[in-house]
This record gives sequence, structure tokens and C-alpha cells, in this order.
Amino acid sequence: MSERSERRTSPAGLSLNQITTRNWSLPEAVQGCVDAGIQAIGLWRDKVAETGIDRAAKVVREAGLTVSSLCRGGFLTASVPEARRAALADNLRAIEEAAALGTDTLVMVVGGLPEGSHDLNGARTRVAEMLAELAPRAGDFGVRLAIEPLHPMFCADRAVVSTLGQALDLAEQFPAEQVGVVVDSYHVWWDPQLAGQIARAGNRIAAYQVCDWTLPLPSDALLGRGHVGDGHIDFRTMTDLVTAAGYTGWIEVEIFNQQIWDTPGEQTLATMIERHLSHVIGS
Amino acid sequence: MSERSERRTSPAGLSLNQITTRNWSLPEAVQGCVDAGIQAIGLWRDKVAETGIDRAAKVVREAGLTVSSLCRGGFLTASVPEARRAALADNLRAIEEAAALGTDTLVMVVGGLPEGSHDLNGARTRVAEMLAELAPRAGDFGVRLAIEPLHPMFCADRAVVSTLGQALDLAEQFPAEQVGVVVDSYHVWWDPQLAGQIARAGNRIAAYQVCDWTLPLPSDALLGRGHVGDGHIDFRTMTDLVTAAGYTGWIEVEIFNQQIWDTPGEQTLATMIERHLSHVIGS
Repeated sequence: MSERSERRTSPAGLSLNQITTRNWSLPEAVQGCVDAGIQAIGLWRDKVAETGIDRAAKVVREAGLTVSSLCRGGFLTASVPEARRAALADNLRAIEEAAALGTDTLVMVVGGLPEGSHDLNGARTRVAEMLAELAPRAGDFGVRLAIEPLHPMFCADRAVVSTLGQALDLAEQFPAEQVGVVVDSYHVWWDPQLAGQIARAGNRIAAYQVCDWTLPLPSDALLGRGHVGDGHIDFRTMTDLVTAAGYTGWIEVEIFNQQIWDTPGEQTLATMIERHLSHVIGS
Repeated sequence: MSERSERRTSPAGLSLNQITTRNWSLPEAVQGCVDAGIQAIGLWRDKVAETGIDRAAKVVREAGLTVSSLCRGGFLTASVPEARRAALADNLRAIEEAAALGTDTLVMVVGGLPEGSHDLNGARTRVAEMLAELAPRAGDFGVRLAIEPLHPMFCADRAVVSTLGQALDLAEQFPAEQVGVVVDSYHVWWDPQLAGQIARAGNRIAAYQVCDWTLPLPSDALLGRGHVGDGHIDFRTMTDLVTAAGYTGWIEVEIFNQQIWDTPGEQTLATMIERHLSHVIGS
């Protein structure tokens, strides 16, 4: 209760997913959070590698921040044996990195159709097979694989897992401490089954990420996401659903948007905090 | 059986949705179908109005074509009473036009969120309420309202009905001869529940439309559709599912794509026929 009531009057509960301030290095993003009073950060592997994992872990720890998640593992749909082995190896490294950084959540973007393939069911089957290899290894490291359903417009090229229900069908094949799901507002807001599937998810919800659905879509649809409040999503209702399902974790702001990336990071964080308080939490 | 076997060796079964040859007037599209041996056409209301409904009906009839559908009614989500009344009146006109043109299928694109609204559930409820007004009137004219689930990327601005399952939940509130659904490959191909929902649809399938999911999406996502075979969809599997559900109607090619619109219509129809035979039917 005290954590919940604190959330309502401070940016507590809010986490910066560092892709949102893409022009910042990892140490810059950590300092930005400290200066803004944001207490958690979601890290990206490329930014961690740029800084070096030992230094990255140290910088975050010394700043007193929590690492809410590591983005990202996945890309599990390859049909060629070498590519599958490479994907397994890379995901095992990602699991180790998550553990080294002190987070228990590895976000998984499962991958799209292999080049030239039309076999969507086959790709989905391979995701399940690869998860079966990875889940116990994640468990060994105290890390949970968080399957992220992506918006169906990314089905061909980025993620053949397209709904929360489908992500749960996969996750439920494994222990809850090994495999969970991500609820990302941008990807799931349209789903007529959303309320029921969030309730079903319960303790499988490993991460709650927010950004808004804004129109028009840009020519690279990946970069069309907006600040909370700038688009069409009802965040308060979604937060209430996630909270009612028992989720008490961080709310990560993850935005892919060139214009926001070109904005000074301090300003982006100020907007995030304002929108978090006005749109995401409380009532 | 004989109709089915004929389909495999001729463009029988194939219908031109006239948006695919957008630069053609209605009489030009009708003549194009006759010249190419295509036996059915899906009409658009704006093209019908341009020609005049009586003349349009006569041109199609004298050419011996079947009108596979009329596009489109819908836009049922307005919350303001006047706008709702206007939408009802317009849909009643569309029902009468369908009957006058000799088709029993009126495609319904239900509409997106009203300007500034974040109330997705409210918009969906209004769709059901409006259908309840319209369904018996459609029945009086021997016309079936065919609810078209649109791809979730159109949820905010064009259609709050986003999956076949959701369309069926709506349709099943009414007699099957009054309300059916459209299976459009572009909008539903990604759905993990697709096979089960097509089977469930059975005699509710009022239209089967095809075009391909091609990448990258253009800046106006509406115009990103491709010829069958140019993208990521497995059409043979989808046709098998639709056929197994009992559907024996026309297969309409409906493509929104500026480049295809800029192509001579004869060439577009030749490509349609070739792809129909190589990708959509037979095995």
C-alpha cells in the first residue's frame, strides 16, 4: 500500500526504458534518471555493450537505480540449424547479461517470418521449441523470459507473437518464474480480449511498458510511437487492469520516435513524469 | 463439385473489387471484366454514384456480371445523436443501393474512435447498437450486412472491429441471413486464432477478399497492399480454411495501392488472374 500511495505523488513506479533517450549513452541515461528522480531504468544490450557490462552494472548500482528489464533477447524463428544455434547462443548471453546487470526480466521479441517464408505456423512452433531450450537456463540465472507480443503490423518482420493471449499460451507451458509476458500498451491496446487476457496473465506479467498510439503512422511504422497522452490509448483503464491482475512492478516508458530522440533527454524525462502522473496512474 | 473444379482452370470464382482498378469508371471496369473473362465485380458506392445507380445496374446486368458485394456501409461509432442519425440514414441508403444493384452483400467498415475519444469499449458498444437498428432493415431488402474486421493498425481511425472472432461475436447476435462477416486476407492473416474462427464462421462468411501483406508499409498505411503472391501471406492455406468452412462464394481481389492504381487496368486484371490460379486456389 505505501509503495502504491507513493507512486501517486512522485515518479516512483516510473522507469525509463533507455531507447526513449536513444541519444544518451548508458551513463548519461543513468545520470538523467538520478537528476529527474526516476528510480529505475530498462537497459538495452547495445548500450550496455558500448559502455562495457561491468562498468554498466557498476554505474547503475552506484546511482542506486533498479534495472527494471533488459531489452532484448528473442529472434527465435530461424529455420536453418546454424541460425537457430546462433540464436540460442545469443540468448544465453543475454540471460547472463541480465543476471550480471541485476535484473530478473529479459524482454523477448520473438522474431518474424524467415526471409521468403510464408509458414507462420512453423515460425510460431519454432518459438515454442526455442523457449523450451532457454527457459530452464534462464531459471538457473534467476532471470525470467518476458515474451512481448508485438502489434500485428509487425507479424511478418519482427514478432510472430501478436496478442497477449498467444503470449500466455506460450508462457503457460513453463513455470511462471521462468517465462512471463510483457504488456506494452502500444502493441495490445486494440485487442478486444485485452481485459480478460490481462486478468488471466496475473503473476505472468513481467513488465508493463507504455507509450501512445499516434497517427498518422510514419513510413517506418516502428518509429510511430508517441508520448503517453498524445494519442488514442486509455492508459488509466489499462493500468487499472494490470494493477487488478496483481502487478506491482515498474511502469517503463519505451518510445521509438525520431522526433523524441532528437529532443534533449532532460525534456523527454520531464514530459514522461508529467504524463505518468496525469495519465497513467491515479484517478 | 463442378463449380469447384471449374474454378481451378479458369478465373471462375474470381471477382474484381473495383477499388483495385480505381482509375476505371464503373462501365470501364465492367468492360474490363468481360474482356478478361472475370464473371463478378464488387462495386463501390462512389463509383456507382458517378455513373448513376440505374445505369450502373443496367451496365452490370447487360454484361452478364454478378455483383459480388457493395462497398461500403458502416462508420457506426459516432457518439453525437445527429451524427448517429446521419449514419443510420446513409446505411439505409446503402442497403437500398445494394438491393438495386442485385447484390446480397453490403460490406461494413464499422468506423474508428470518434475525434478525441479514448473510449474504445464505448465505440464498440455503439457498433452493436447500430447493427441492431440496421440488421432487420437489411433483411427486408434481402441484403446481408458483412462486418469486416480491419487490421488492428486501423483500430483508431477506421474500424474498432479488429478480429474475425470479434466480428463473429457481433454477427451472432443477429440471424445469419442478416449479418455476416468478411474474411479479408490482409486484415486477418496474422491472427493466431484464425483457423478456429474461420471454422466457427461457417455460413456467416459473406465475402472472401484477398490481397497480400507487403513491406515496408508506406507512410499512408492504407495503401500498402500488394498483389497476391507479392508478400507474406499463405493464400492456399487460407482458401482451404474458408472452403472447409463451407464458403462457395466469390473470391474478390481488393487492393489499395497507388502503384497498382497507376497501372493500366488490363494489366492489373491479367496479374490478378495469374495469381488467382497460381496462389489462391487449387494445389
